[in-house]
Amino acid sequence: MIVVMRRGSPPEAIQAVVERINELGFRAHLSAGVEQTIIGVIGDERPVNESVFRMLDGVEKVVRILKPYKLASRDFHPLDTVVPINGVTVGGKRIVIMAGPCSVESREQLRETAQAVKEAGAHILRAGAFKPRTSPYSFQGLGIRALELLAEIKPELGMPIITEVMAPEHVQVVAECADILQIGTRNMQNFSLLHTVGDLGRPVLLKRGMMSTMEELLMSAEYILSHGNQRLMLCERGIRTFETYTRNTLDLSAVPVLKQMTHLPILIDPSHATGNWEWVTPLSLAAVAAGSDGLLIEVHPHPDKALSDGAQQLRPERFAELVQRARVVAEAVGREL
Amino acid sequence: MIVVMRRGSPPEAIQAVVERINELGFRAHLSAGVEQTIIGVIGDERPVNESVFRMLDGVEKVVRILKPYKLASRDFHPLDTVVPINGVTVGGKRIVIMAGPCSVESREQLRETAQAVKEAGAHILRAGAFKPRTSPYSFQGLGIRALELLAEIKPELGMPIITEVMAPEHVQVVAECADILQIGTRNMQNFSLLHTVGDLGRPVLLKRGMMSTMEELLMSAEYILSHGNQRLMLCERGIRTFETYTRNTLDLSAVPVLKQMTHLPILIDPSHATGNWEWVTPLSLAAVAAGSDGLLIEVHPHPDKALSDGAQQLRPERFAELVQRARVVAEAVGREL
Amino acid sequence: MIVVMRRGSPPEAIQAVVERINELGFRAHLSAGVEQTIIGVIGDERPVNESVFRMLDGVEKVVRILKPYKLASRDFHPLDTVVPINGVTVGGKRIVIMAGPCSVESREQLRETAQAVKEAGAHILRAGAFKPRTSPYSFQGLGIRALELLAEIKPELGMPIITEVMAPEHVQVVAECADILQIGTRNMQNFSLLHTVGDLGRPVLLKRGMMSTMEELLMSAEYILSHGNQRLMLCERGIRTFETYTRNTLDLSAVPVLKQMTHLPILIDPSHATGNWEWVTPLSLAAVAAGSDGLLIEVHPHPDKALSDGAQQLRPERFAELVQRARVVAEAVGREL
Amino acid sequence: MIVVMRRGSPPEAIQAVVERINELGFRAHLSAGVEQTIIGVIGDERPVNESVFRMLDGVEKVVRILKPYKLASRDFHPLDTVVPINGVTVGGKRIVIMAGPCSVESREQLRETAQAVKEAGAHILRAGAFKPRTSPYSFQGLGIRALELLAEIKPELGMPIITEVMAPEHVQVVAECADILQIGTRNMQNFSLLHTVGDLGRPVLLKRGMMSTMEELLMSAEYILSHGNQRLMLCERGIRTFETYTRNTLDLSAVPVLKQMTHLPILIDPSHATGNWEWVTPLSLAAVAAGSDGLLIEVHPHPDKALSDGAQQLRPERFAELVQRARVVAEAVGREL
Repeated sequence: MIVVMRRGSPPEAIQAVVERINELGFRAHLSAGVEQTIIGVIGDERPVNESVFRMLDGVEKVVRILKPYKLASRDFHPLDTVVPINGVTVGGKRIVIMAGPCSVESREQLRETAQAVKEAGAHILRAGAFKPRTSPYSFQGLGIRALELLAEIKPELGMPIITEVMAPEHVQVVAECADILQIGTRNMQNFSLLHTVGDLGRPVLLKRGMMSTMEELLMSAEYILSHGNQRLMLCERGIRTFETYTRNTLDLSAVPVLKQMTHLPILIDPSHATGNWEWVTPLSLAAVAAGSDGLLIEVHPHPDKALSDGAQQLRPERFAELVQRARVVAEAVGREL
Repeated sequence: MIVVMRRGSPPEAIQAVVERINELGFRAHLSAGVEQTIIGVIGDERPVNESVFRMLDGVEKVVRILKPYKLASRDFHPLDTVVPINGVTVGGKRIVIMAGPCSVESREQLRETAQAVKEAGAHILRAGAFKPRTSPYSFQGLGIRALELLAEIKPELGMPIITEVMAPEHVQVVAECADILQIGTRNMQNFSLLHTVGDLGRPVLLKRGMMSTMEELLMSAEYILSHGNQRLMLCERGIRTFETYTRNTLDLSAVPVLKQMTHLPILIDPSHATGNWEWVTPLSLAAVAAGSDGLLIEVHPHPDKALSDGAQQLRPERFAELVQRARVVAEAVGREL
Repeated sequence: MIVVMRRGSPPEAIQAVVERINELGFRAHLSAGVEQTIIGVIGDERPVNESVFRMLDGVEKVVRILKPYKLASRDFHPLDTVVPINGVTVGGKRIVIMAGPCSVESREQLRETAQAVKEAGAHILRAGAFKPRTSPYSFQGLGIRALELLAEIKPELGMPIITEVMAPEHVQVVAECADILQIGTRNMQNFSLLHTVGDLGRPVLLKRGMMSTMEELLMSAEYILSHGNQRLMLCERGIRTFETYTRNTLDLSAVPVLKQMTHLPILIDPSHATGNWEWVTPLSLAAVAAGSDGLLIEVHPHPDKALSDGAQQLRPERFAELVQRARVVAEAVGREL
Repeated sequence: MIVVMRRGSPPEAIQAVVERINELGFRAHLSAGVEQTIIGVIGDERPVNESVFRMLDGVEKVVRILKPYKLASRDFHPLDTVVPINGVTVGGKRIVIMAGPCSVESREQLRETAQAVKEAGAHILRAGAFKPRTSPYSFQGLGIRALELLAEIKPELGMPIITEVMAPEHVQVVAECADILQIGTRNMQNFSLLHTVGDLGRPVLLKRGMMSTMEELLMSAEYILSHGNQRLMLCERGIRTFETYTRNTLDLSAVPVLKQMTHLPILIDPSHATGNWEWVTPLSLAAVAAGSDGLLIEVHPHPDKALSDGAQQLRPERFAELVQRARVVAEAVGREL
């Protein structure tokens, strides 16, 4: 941490900062510049609130130096984390595709979609049971009934299942049928939920908040990792910007940037980012080319009848084409699919 | 809802849209423009997913016409909602000030601050027990212990208390000592929590998500109102923008705009918006001038020793000055304080 | 400037950074932390591109310490700048109101509006001649003809005039009738234009870019100030955010923040920020309460007939009411109007 | 255009809107919904300011239906535009690479870089002469001297050249050596400049403003196209968001979206978007996979000595590797390079 003193701060102000630094158990390191004096705070600054210095007289600003996350950082864990999930591995050479309907709507719709995405080459079935919806008037998902349907088709399907969990009180019941618990974009900073899934130890896919920086995403990852749960995957699904033509703005730079910051696998969800199936395939190919470890794709046999987000769901035949094209791009960048 | 057909769509495509509209129980109303045909969907569009039309051949876009919220709307409830809270009224002529420490840190700190803000003219004590923190390494609040301290000082203090509740499982225990339950910015779309506080029926202060639109704020309000809980107040606390000099950007236009959209009272929290006590007073005066129904202000007797967000907390004497200046401005715009 | 070395950088990497610092004529100051070494660069860092250090092996990041602007800074010019404009003073105790039509449309419309705003209490006439319009199909302003009309009514009106200049080649002709040259939001970083108005020496009102930070605004001010033109005023007019209900988001925190950063006067334009006349008055009162030195308000005698931006223009009688109410608020915060 | 009336608007208000519609030469089409009446405005709405309706009594909002751009639209020009530039074709099957130094710094640096990028497979040399810089203290480019150096190496090099033009008064001199005039992100709405390059008729590369929507980009394209200049290319180079880890956020969804909206070629500039050479290659591969027609890449033989933006410039050997890898991805998606 660096404390920058205002131009012309008197020696007593500087002295007071140094004393506060010492009081808190750190060492101070002074450096007098041509215009301003700066004071280095030597020690592990992570638990310290910068306000303790910013509030002192003569302090202009406080700059953090250390990364605020530790367990999620590549500095502390240089090798890529690989997450095994009942026979599927996320974070290795193979790019993993999680596909399925936005919401479970019925046994038939679920079975038809699950079968179709499996045949097309998906590795994991995604399907929503509890749906976070902006409006109380929108379809809220079948909830427990959807979990039952997922449990029912699981044995015959033979694919791991990922579904979203929205509240700590649902973690146990969701974990009964889900191989991966998904934390959605609106819950990235639902700390109570992060603690609960951290404790459970089951694989977790943590989506970046649509309003959150990559650093904040890693801080939320840190909550889960600090419970000893290392089976964690991250997912970029679009951030909110001033552009309204797409629902959100897919931040594909998150792939190489997060690969540098952290050892955790990174997946991309182009369905939610764009909100429009027509743009899902080109952005899926781009995600693979950028180095993503996987894709989350929404697929529905009859998107115009879908109870939620039909516009962003691909028909099975278009999804099959996406997988084929993604496989060629994967090979072009030295990956498999 | 308006369905806009692409230029040159064939009559069959138009017919198919009309049939789908009829199937869903609405009436269709065609209007052939010079370049494009548009089709009006007559009926209550709120529960309808626009994808059911967007996915049809030849459809260029779908435009919603009705406001997506109903109970929160001024159209359905033209008069201002007034929320009575144990002797204090929010939403009337008097501007209400909720003040206190970011976090409860100790009995002494709480008592000293509570006494100071009361003397300075605050109407309601705000104090954090459960703290949502980006980092797991930051002080997380005293939790239950803080609630006990709040319950302890409440009889002697004689002021209503507001504190944040972060998870459905805490609602009951928080409600034991709090007169108002605060839903924080990160939980504006924690729907499980919205349902729980809606059911409880206790006064709620709902903060705008830092990256949520005003319309989304009203949709979250709708969740609470739909449980029959009308004692609801809204709070603007800064939104996330590209500007980094202030922590967030206080959107004061939310005051006149929300006053037009909804009947619910609107408060302003300049402490969290700016993240810096030096800017809290001018923005408080601005909020009062803009027509805000109240202010949330963080006050700490020793901000440089605060365990959280010291930089944005006012010393009691500065808070007292803020109240005096806000009173003069309130009178200048025909309000009281 | 602070160079932060990656964890575990070898001594040779540190040595290479130190040598580069010395080569560039600065002194290096090493500080070995518990996890990372940081190196201070002592000297005036402003002309230095941080890339010269960031590209060196082992460098994690480079942090600037000094403010990048100098002439605009309060550190270098502690007293408020006051700009005299033909009898009107901007930046003193009196709050200055610049009002008039979005565009000059005809002699009658201009005269009627000018007379009305003067009677209502405006100090300076604002009126657009050259209009920056997103669409080539929109009314582009009367251009030179508008300047002639402004010149024509000026003697009888007896008020200073402000109008926008969009291109360096128009600066001379605009300066013939305008007392203040306005640089619009889209031209805040039109550096060729900044140089030209800097050279001219005439009072300038520089609007913040709708997606520019306050620091960037001051850098653009620095371009003008560096030509020796000190008669400079800044204007906040709304920034672009994800919120679409208002046209832009008025950043009123810019008033106290810029007052701290710079000695230049700050004005507020609520008409462009909101895009809706209904919200102009409450935000004008808020701007005055926050400490703004003035307001820019669009007024039109028949907004529904206006050739540009009718929705944000106040009718003269509403403007008159705004001035009266703003006067009361000005007095409440110790200013005059 | 659709005029939405407020709930409960009286017949006279509706009648007044209809009359205004007729007065302006349009036809009105009424549609009474269950809650609100809407009125269609039949005719070419593009030159009409929606304020003419929004200001009328009882009007809640006005919704535009037609795309505001026409010449840039795929509706009016269904086939892809192909831009021939002295032997290089942009917009066809072949992906075009424009590469070179951020700024021309010297004859040696220019020649060395130009030779290197040509050998590595670039098709067009990019090099900055006039540099838009936030700070007046930063290197502003060699200006005319840089143009002379570009003219000098051009015959021996045998590659077309692209360079930025910042002001109308420089268009002629830049056009003497440049085959493509680049309009930078800060000048996307410098309308005076758009008119001047539109008139000239030389190929233009128009960069998206960092604060501009795709629709606004097409409106600026429309300014150029309306002068009859069809040799126009668009470029996405990152937009400004709340994320600060990358300099801007590259919006790769712009590729498929703009391909749908317009017939103009789309290029991607990952160097400016990220501000960091380490992320340029993965995002270049992603851009190719997403369907981009070309790339703009900054290359410098000694990035740590660069006078501007060294951190984002690739060394020639890394650029050569980028081209090879991009070629493989191009083939994987059915393109050439």
